[in-house]
Amino acid sequence: MLNIAGREFASRLFIGTGKFAHPELLKNVAQASGSQMATMALKRLHISTENTAAANNDDILTPLKQLNIHLLPNTSGAANAKEAIYAAELAREALQTNWVKLEIHPDPRYLMPDGNETFIAAKKLCELGFVVLPYVHADPVLCKKLEEVGCAAVMPLGAPIGSNRGLLTEDFLRIIIEQANIPVVVDAGIGAPSHAAYAMELGADAVLVNSAIAVSAKPVAMAKAFAQAVEAGRCAYEAGLAEVGMQAQASSPLTEFLQQLNEVE
Amino acid sequence: MLNIAGREFASRLFIGTGKFAHPELLKNVAQASGSQMATMALKRLHISTENTAAANNDDILTPLKQLNIHLLPNTSGAANAKEAIYAAELAREALQTNWVKLEIHPDPRYLMPDGNETFIAAKKLCELGFVVLPYVHADPVLCKKLEEVGCAAVMPLGAPIGSNRGLLTEDFLRIIIEQANIPVVVDAGIGAPSHAAYAMELGADAVLVNSAIAVSAKPVAMAKAFAQAVEAGRCAYEAGLAEVGMQAQASSPLTEFLQQLNEVE
Amino acid sequence: MLNIAGREFASRLFIGTGKFAHPELLKNVAQASGSQMATMALKRLHISTENTAAANNDDILTPLKQLNIHLLPNTSGAANAKEAIYAAELAREALQTNWVKLEIHPDPRYLMPDGNETFIAAKKLCELGFVVLPYVHADPVLCKKLEEVGCAAVMPLGAPIGSNRGLLTEDFLRIIIEQANIPVVVDAGIGAPSHAAYAMELGADAVLVNSAIAVSAKPVAMAKAFAQAVEAGRCAYEAGLAEVGMQAQASSPLTEFLQQLNEVE
Amino acid sequence: MLNIAGREFASRLFIGTGKFAHPELLKNVAQASGSQMATMALKRLHISTENTAAANNDDILTPLKQLNIHLLPNTSGAANAKEAIYAAELAREALQTNWVKLEIHPDPRYLMPDGNETFIAAKKLCELGFVVLPYVHADPVLCKKLEEVGCAAVMPLGAPIGSNRGLLTEDFLRIIIEQANIPVVVDAGIGAPSHAAYAMELGADAVLVNSAIAVSAKPVAMAKAFAQAVEAGRCAYEAGLAEVGMQAQASSPLTEFLQQLNEVE
Repeated sequence: MLNIAGREFASRLFIGTGKFAHPELLKNVAQASGSQMATMALKRLHISTENTAAANNDDILTPLKQLNIHLLPNTSGAANAKEAIYAAELAREALQTNWVKLEIHPDPRYLMPDGNETFIAAKKLCELGFVVLPYVHADPVLCKKLEEVGCAAVMPLGAPIGSNRGLLTEDFLRIIIEQANIPVVVDAGIGAPSHAAYAMELGADAVLVNSAIAVSAKPVAMAKAFAQAVEAGRCAYEAGLAEVGMQAQASSPLTEFLQQLNEVE
Repeated sequence: MLNIAGREFASRLFIGTGKFAHPELLKNVAQASGSQMATMALKRLHISTENTAAANNDDILTPLKQLNIHLLPNTSGAANAKEAIYAAELAREALQTNWVKLEIHPDPRYLMPDGNETFIAAKKLCELGFVVLPYVHADPVLCKKLEEVGCAAVMPLGAPIGSNRGLLTEDFLRIIIEQANIPVVVDAGIGAPSHAAYAMELGADAVLVNSAIAVSAKPVAMAKAFAQAVEAGRCAYEAGLAEVGMQAQASSPLTEFLQQLNEVE
Repeated sequence: MLNIAGREFASRLFIGTGKFAHPELLKNVAQASGSQMATMALKRLHISTENTAAANNDDILTPLKQLNIHLLPNTSGAANAKEAIYAAELAREALQTNWVKLEIHPDPRYLMPDGNETFIAAKKLCELGFVVLPYVHADPVLCKKLEEVGCAAVMPLGAPIGSNRGLLTEDFLRIIIEQANIPVVVDAGIGAPSHAAYAMELGADAVLVNSAIAVSAKPVAMAKAFAQAVEAGRCAYEAGLAEVGMQAQASSPLTEFLQQLNEVE
Repeated sequence: MLNIAGREFASRLFIGTGKFAHPELLKNVAQASGSQMATMALKRLHISTENTAAANNDDILTPLKQLNIHLLPNTSGAANAKEAIYAAELAREALQTNWVKLEIHPDPRYLMPDGNETFIAAKKLCELGFVVLPYVHADPVLCKKLEEVGCAAVMPLGAPIGSNRGLLTEDFLRIIIEQANIPVVVDAGIGAPSHAAYAMELGADAVLVNSAIAVSAKPVAMAKAFAQAVEAGRCAYEAGLAEVGMQAQASSPLTEFLQQLNEVE
């Protein structure tokens, strides 16, 4: 079973909570996904504590609690280490959790993460007793260094956030997985169940999916599809995938059989 | 539900019966796969009807019957239309089925199908009242012509048989699926659950998997993984996959939230 | 040097003559390309022999002759073997050449070739003394059979005509090239010089490029780019490409050097 | 013309000097490549200044000078910013150049660069008046930050050094190129001329090639092939590549022509 910082997760599918039309839909999606970990942007928390009316419309904590899903606040929107650390501290206080998905992306267009600031913030947050899961480019050296400063897992991207392009970083994910002693959670870019299955087949420990579920015309069905795909990919990884080759091997030569045919003829 | 020639199939995973160590393993695999259609090479039938001792070791009919799996004899090993037609007729007589997976591959190395001979044989077999499912290269024109002469489905390849390389023919499969009025079953090359899921996401009606399951260290677990992946891919196809783009869209801008942080600071 | 049916070609870039704004542009493109073989659709020939005014606007024979470029009439637009054979015979009479690029595509949308009709027409045209270069899907069995009935070369597609998608059929082209005893000319789909170079690196004997040059904003410059890319790819193929691996090998360990640094420090 | 830090380069192919059997071969390769910039590991410099016998065998400076090729010392082998800065300073003194290719890779297996240390060293070296060209992962945020601290160019990798796997990082290179105001030089992973052409078609300003030339059976021929491919790719980029689509467009409908055929018939 997947174990992050001493906590066990029966499901290897993590979900995001953004872009859902209403909390009820999120609840149904979360249930269909079987997920036991969900990320939540801090901005949403902020709104819900300040503004009662908006809070009711945007209450995502209640459904997650009802389903006993572990909450992973994220620092999405933070542009540097300082902002991310403040955000993590505020989240810890408001939500009573020291878990944090560390996201720092100064780039407003592609939302690519800033590895330098992420490393600085991760080191500090680990020292401050946080359970840190940093979102990073698929950078093998950075992932190793984040492990060394005490991160609980690394979350390398498959492709730019929201692009649904799958595992563009495949070859680098292989290196990261090979080198890691902490869980590797593929985050961003996973746009279809086949992408999720593939990440698991590569040996990833989990995947995080948000927009591919949230923007689907049928989010609940899509959540179930991702859940199955993640199980399928993990199961195949554990069973051992067949080797990829080029030359076929005849599974059933007909020589003898056709000799008989020729005789009959 | 998938319907081929008037017969309904709850599972969109078809399995092969080659390369299994013993019938008991095949039975367990078939059960785990949930499959309702299995192909069988005629050569194996031949052995089992002729030679009692070998038959007991190679009896694959009994487990398939016990699981109520529809049998799809294949003409694997036939090198031309004439051989394939003979083989189909013999199978019809011996197995009391007019279903046939038409395979003609003169090439002993890559086992690539012969489209010309396949077309000739398919036309003839349809005239003779067979339910014909031809195995072909991912050739959109050939697939359309096979539909026109009465084939019940087409089975284009994803990659060379036994290569486990996935959907190398992806772009041609898309055209085939777009143009087809009969089911499209992706056959050959599917080496991992993610490949199977991807075929289903493209809109394929079913996939056929043999060696990726049979040569796995844990065939039963792998069969289950493929079953889940096929369901996941189909479910995603029906729910509607998210569009693939390049530019990210910020799901959660932190501007306001960070203003507050700056004030606090 | 490339040899097709006894004729030698110093350039391995074949060009198409369609889609150029005027004959002068075609002439400049042909010159920049260094090509020694150009295909021409029969319909254009028809117009130029019938209608004098149109002929002057669409005279592509004169520039090709001036540049001593071998003419390869094509049967583009033929929907079956019969039409293609007629077209080839008409071309032979009108142009005094028994060379023909055999194209049969009944499909008006993707212009994918019909392998069955192509095989029938190729066999007949070879018997009639034509030098036949058939345009086909990247189908290894079909290519081998076309060689056996006497074709002078095979022209498998890289991707659908006009798609500019490159070598989607790469893995099948490898098999075709490995098995062929006649030249393999990759046709269709080549949209960039890198695609052309890659085809040559795989061992293709030549490539045919039309729309990627003709629809470029600067066709003459693009023709030159393709000429260089084809030479580069062929040269690399002959020189022997480096093996593709995954693990890096340190080209220049600094250990000793840094020891010195440490001492200096 | 390519301009880096005020210096103009007529050739957009940069070469490495490692792995060549002897200086004469390097000279011939450099000449065939037409390159005007060559990197050199500092360790080799060290040997050549200290040890006269070894120096004669490993003298790569003389041929580069004779060909008037600009020397770009690299810090390959440095495991952190401190080592790299020392190395750069030593190179400046010994070689009378303030240009430096900044390479920091603590990872001995895949030689992936360390973005954090590279950023620290780049900032410092820019302050010290160096012309800094850092070798980095294809990390868009890092590349932008390196530009901001004054680097003269960025050198993102296409694939792990020595892997010859081409542009695995393609989608990230596109973002880097789109965002950059300084030259982007694709470095590492380029194993074939088609890869180099493709990098140029994407809009890269130059490519660096070492092992693909050096380990070829015919390095001089391969150098020429790369030179042509780089020119071809750049020329195509400037001419404007055709759009990639899926649906074909008939270049030459035969309708009218075939009507005539039918009448003739």
